[in-house]
Amino acid sequence: MERSAMSNTIYVINPNSSTTVTDAIDRALEPLRTPQGPAIACLTLPDGPAGIQSQRDVDGVIGPLLRRAGDLEEEAAAFVIACFSDPGLHALREQSRRPVFGIAEAGVLTALTLGQRFGVIAILPTSIPRHLRYFGAMGVMGRFAGDLSIGLGVAELADEARTYERMSATGRALRDAHGADVIVMGCAGMARYRRRLQDELGVPVVEPTQAATAMALGRVLLGDR
Amino acid sequence: MERSAMSNTIYVINPNSSTTVTDAIDRALEPLRTPQGPAIACLTLPDGPAGIQSQRDVDGVIGPLLRRAGDLEEEAAAFVIACFSDPGLHALREQSRRPVFGIAEAGVLTALTLGQRFGVIAILPTSIPRHLRYFGAMGVMGRFAGDLSIGLGVAELADEARTYERMSATGRALRDAHGADVIVMGCAGMARYRRRLQDELGVPVVEPTQAATAMALGRVLLGDR
Amino acid sequence: MERSAMSNTIYVINPNSSTTVTDAIDRALEPLRTPQGPAIACLTLPDGPAGIQSQRDVDGVIGPLLRRAGDLEEEAAAFVIACFSDPGLHALREQSRRPVFGIAEAGVLTALTLGQRFGVIAILPTSIPRHLRYFGAMGVMGRFAGDLSIGLGVAELADEARTYERMSATGRALRDAHGADVIVMGCAGMARYRRRLQDELGVPVVEPTQAATAMALGRVLLGDR
Amino acid sequence: MERSAMSNTIYVINPNSSTTVTDAIDRALEPLRTPQGPAIACLTLPDGPAGIQSQRDVDGVIGPLLRRAGDLEEEAAAFVIACFSDPGLHALREQSRRPVFGIAEAGVLTALTLGQRFGVIAILPTSIPRHLRYFGAMGVMGRFAGDLSIGLGVAELADEARTYERMSATGRALRDAHGADVIVMGCAGMARYRRRLQDELGVPVVEPTQAATAMALGRVLLGDR
Amino acid sequence: MERSAMSNTIYVINPNSSTTVTDAIDRALEPLRTPQGPAIACLTLPDGPAGIQSQRDVDGVIGPLLRRAGDLEEEAAAFVIACFSDPGLHALREQSRRPVFGIAEAGVLTALTLGQRFGVIAILPTSIPRHLRYFGAMGVMGRFAGDLSIGLGVAELADEARTYERMSATGRALRDAHGADVIVMGCAGMARYRRRLQDELGVPVVEPTQAATAMALGRVLLGDR
Amino acid sequence: MERSAMSNTIYVINPNSSTTVTDAIDRALEPLRTPQGPAIACLTLPDGPAGIQSQRDVDGVIGPLLRRAGDLEEEAAAFVIACFSDPGLHALREQSRRPVFGIAEAGVLTALTLGQRFGVIAILPTSIPRHLRYFGAMGVMGRFAGDLSIGLGVAELADEARTYERMSATGRALRDAHGADVIVMGCAGMARYRRRLQDELGVPVVEPTQAATAMALGRVLLGDR
Repeated sequence: MERSAMSNTIYVINPNSSTTVTDAIDRALEPLRTPQGPAIACLTLPDGPAGIQSQRDVDGVIGPLLRRAGDLEEEAAAFVIACFSDPGLHALREQSRRPVFGIAEAGVLTALTLGQRFGVIAILPTSIPRHLRYFGAMGVMGRFAGDLSIGLGVAELADEARTYERMSATGRALRDAHGADVIVMGCAGMARYRRRLQDELGVPVVEPTQAATAMALGRVLLGDR
Repeated sequence: MERSAMSNTIYVINPNSSTTVTDAIDRALEPLRTPQGPAIACLTLPDGPAGIQSQRDVDGVIGPLLRRAGDLEEEAAAFVIACFSDPGLHALREQSRRPVFGIAEAGVLTALTLGQRFGVIAILPTSIPRHLRYFGAMGVMGRFAGDLSIGLGVAELADEARTYERMSATGRALRDAHGADVIVMGCAGMARYRRRLQDELGVPVVEPTQAATAMALGRVLLGDR
Repeated sequence: MERSAMSNTIYVINPNSSTTVTDAIDRALEPLRTPQGPAIACLTLPDGPAGIQSQRDVDGVIGPLLRRAGDLEEEAAAFVIACFSDPGLHALREQSRRPVFGIAEAGVLTALTLGQRFGVIAILPTSIPRHLRYFGAMGVMGRFAGDLSIGLGVAELADEARTYERMSATGRALRDAHGADVIVMGCAGMARYRRRLQDELGVPVVEPTQAATAMALGRVLLGDR
Repeated sequence: MERSAMSNTIYVINPNSSTTVTDAIDRALEPLRTPQGPAIACLTLPDGPAGIQSQRDVDGVIGPLLRRAGDLEEEAAAFVIACFSDPGLHALREQSRRPVFGIAEAGVLTALTLGQRFGVIAILPTSIPRHLRYFGAMGVMGRFAGDLSIGLGVAELADEARTYERMSATGRALRDAHGADVIVMGCAGMARYRRRLQDELGVPVVEPTQAATAMALGRVLLGDR
Repeated sequence: MERSAMSNTIYVINPNSSTTVTDAIDRALEPLRTPQGPAIACLTLPDGPAGIQSQRDVDGVIGPLLRRAGDLEEEAAAFVIACFSDPGLHALREQSRRPVFGIAEAGVLTALTLGQRFGVIAILPTSIPRHLRYFGAMGVMGRFAGDLSIGLGVAELADEARTYERMSATGRALRDAHGADVIVMGCAGMARYRRRLQDELGVPVVEPTQAATAMALGRVLLGDR
Repeated sequence: MERSAMSNTIYVINPNSSTTVTDAIDRALEPLRTPQGPAIACLTLPDGPAGIQSQRDVDGVIGPLLRRAGDLEEEAAAFVIACFSDPGLHALREQSRRPVFGIAEAGVLTALTLGQRFGVIAILPTSIPRHLRYFGAMGVMGRFAGDLSIGLGVAELADEARTYERMSATGRALRDAHGADVIVMGCAGMARYRRRLQDELGVPVVEPTQAATAMALGRVLLGDR
């Protein structure tokens, strides 16, 4: 895991093809850029689907993602996979000599430092069984409060008023009926709502791309010391 | 899930390219073929790797597997994915209107009817974390005794004497040091050793392709009644 | 577990004394009968209570059930215990050289292949702690969504309209408030409602006697190969 | 649960027919007898087997045990079922208006106040899966270190030297290889070895009949206040 | 753990400074006092806060509590820490040669003998994450139904009508919406409401100071035999 | 959680009184210091014990630690508690408006991104039950491989050769006999051995003070955006 002078960029790969989402991620990560720290570059995967909603979408982006990351290996200090299903996380960990983070894994682990039971705001109901399988694989179901969807696809997230209204209602349900004392936003495209939602709900709200990139930054700075 | 007269074949897809493995599976499933029951056809995925050993291998066969299954949808009564990492299981469940079984899932669930704590014989040490994530996702770690590898790749399984010797030693370790009272063979290519291993160990040994195809047969016969 | 030519019948033993229930089970299992496969014979236990509702009922039928199964041992290819408390499951496994299945165990394990979180429709509230102890023993509480009762005893199930109305309401509560994406009917006497309930709820509904007998059929066909 | 002046005896029922075991239990409970507290009467179940070793034995004593307890209901202040499989525990709780304790349940719960991970010394290997199902039903597998058998049937416990030697070796294995910091003796017939074993192992050793009767005593004294 | 003739008192230490609470505990424990059994002395910790509500309160009383218990070591037969956060439980177990019980641990373990899923009535919402951490450390989350607060601080418990009304509503919610079939009162200051609440709810209600002192009594009577 | 220009220091508090340990921590954190990022100041708690080994030590440092942190509140950007028992973690989270990290929590969560099952190298055997309670409270026992001690007190860690030899043997046992694929060093005083141990074992080794301070750095940079 030795990092040469060349490999000084944390690559945050948005595996869908939406540059709007990538741009929002880029803005959310701005505070993690420091003068002498690693660069943070956010990339869109042009081969990816418009939004990653089904298991097929998740599995289908792994190949392109591994190829893209392979091309970046030498310049990379670390990789962040910016989709809440963490597609290709373990395959990229096999392939790369760099640290690799998934935003679902990092978002949930970060939530565990902020509350005792985490709730997740999903986009679509079909995401929920997939999330549950993943939380089971992570072994964190003992800290799980609930996972509720806002019932909107990635494309529909463009309607900000409706999206926020649903996120707010879903967050309140997680807090009040499911006992969540920390909320994880279950999609890379929700960053802009974090602060407002946290203020309204009165419990911490984790934006998972920030959580993963923050962990990546720490790992890169530490190198292998 | 209505099945037409046409769709009367259980397709067992070996996602690696080894026809030797496929042939062995085919023999192992012979007892499940009945005169008026569904046909059972075992297929090799020519696009697949020689053996599925890494997470990259697992993820990489999903696309070809989904395409192959898609082509077979109309004739299919059910699908069985014959690799112990269950590649594409949930994506194929999304894609197909037929019942879909994975051999790891079915093998472990079947083992739960035969003993209180299941042990798994893996091929390579690198498979073990992947298995553990999967058993966690299945929520069955409370019944898990251990997962030990024989340290041989799929290709090396051709040396039968060495393979059996390692399986036997591994099975004894699972039984004696880890408390397993039922063993699951963690690879589709081990079917020929099942009976001998069971006789030697004195505890039930599950061949997962048989387990999955038996579940598929039941589901097909029941239709949606 | 060698099976002679004589031992070619799967005995499905309804441990209560209701032939109405036995007849309904018999009809539900019809699709599993194949020309050259094993016979499937459904028996009523005349010594059993009218309905098995209390723990005392469960424990009380074990002796008669073991005796009846003992008498059938030579002709049996397998046994299915058709009561959702799986009375005598482990004692019969000790006693018999044949495969033995319980409908609760098989129903729940089958549900695990159809959804991520299973809900159970119980008959009476007093069944629920018993079910929970059993699911705990099975180690599957990590996949458990909820267990709700329809508040009707076995005898009251005769009123079909009321029974279905309650099952439907209970199923909706399991799906909507408890997050179940697969439902297990927690009584052998509910088979006739499976299809209708599944169509209404839009999630798979498992009839556990079918699930157990399908597993038994697979095991019998495989023999000990 | 109001207790009349008449009902002032804690009945400790040994469900096997060995008066030697009952006498040993009686001696072990002597310290719990106090001048104005409830009487503690230890009974043998003459209909019971010589030793309760199989699941069939466990299930088979429930009927006689319930009848015996039924006869004693009016005089009883509480019941203790003195067999480590807790036969009939929940059925007797249904039947009786008195508090009912099982020695496995009480022994393990008491162990949870004395160490972080409990180990169990079983008599025969066949007991172990039954114990594991029970600890699973109790939901305490997260505190479980191991369950190892001394490989002696109830009858063979008469050879004290051999029995102690095996208990000592088993206890050391639980402590050193499995990480147990408290040991539960998994049979009602081991009381005489408790003190010596505890002194040798240097970790607390729980005699489960004492544990259960102590809990019963507390409940009786508190009445329903 | 040998106990001299001198060490014949179970010390129940209320670590807050409220003698009202101590007096209520004292009354609740009256039935556990027997003529020749150990004395039971209830003490107030004058250095303690008026009520133990925050984690800081919990941690802050440990030092004074250990000192007080140290002074009492020779006369003590056992110690009970009478605050539902069990402050100093493990430190006192290290320090003292006597048995030490915490009321949360003992209350929950006792509840496990009375129902399959326990609910907890907390005083303040801020107690709940602390309780959950503790139940997680105890390994009993598999039996946990819910933990709901009445929203009153220790001081506000003086208003009996309001307190009972809230306890009753909370208990009904635990029973009906969370599936609790046994309730633990999550504060040492609720003893007076136990019987009434149990009668109203129709499920057992555990007063944890009684539960812990009953366990202490049993341990003291048994000595180290 | 708004951070003024003044509050720009991450305070890493070593709650024992050993400046040797503090100095080693300070060196281990050097890579996390960046020109415009927050300062990282490592402090010794002069009131703390020479080493924190018992539960009493853990509980005893909470008061001094809270006072010290209280004095630093205005200048603090975040706090790290640099003792593997995370003393006062939740009390300081209550008290402070700044992010607070414990090294055990952060070390284990970081390990979950590096392997599937974590092993812990403890200093003394008495630490292990305390660790297990904590991992239970964290809800991560499903990912736990083992916790073994080197049998040396904090003072004895000064003998580097012996300490490393024991750490190496313990690490190999965790990897080979317990199946750990990532190791967490269970003491703040082991930082100097991390790299060497990782190279020898061939699995990632987490130094928990680095892990916690890296998480703190990320949180501070993100502020509350």
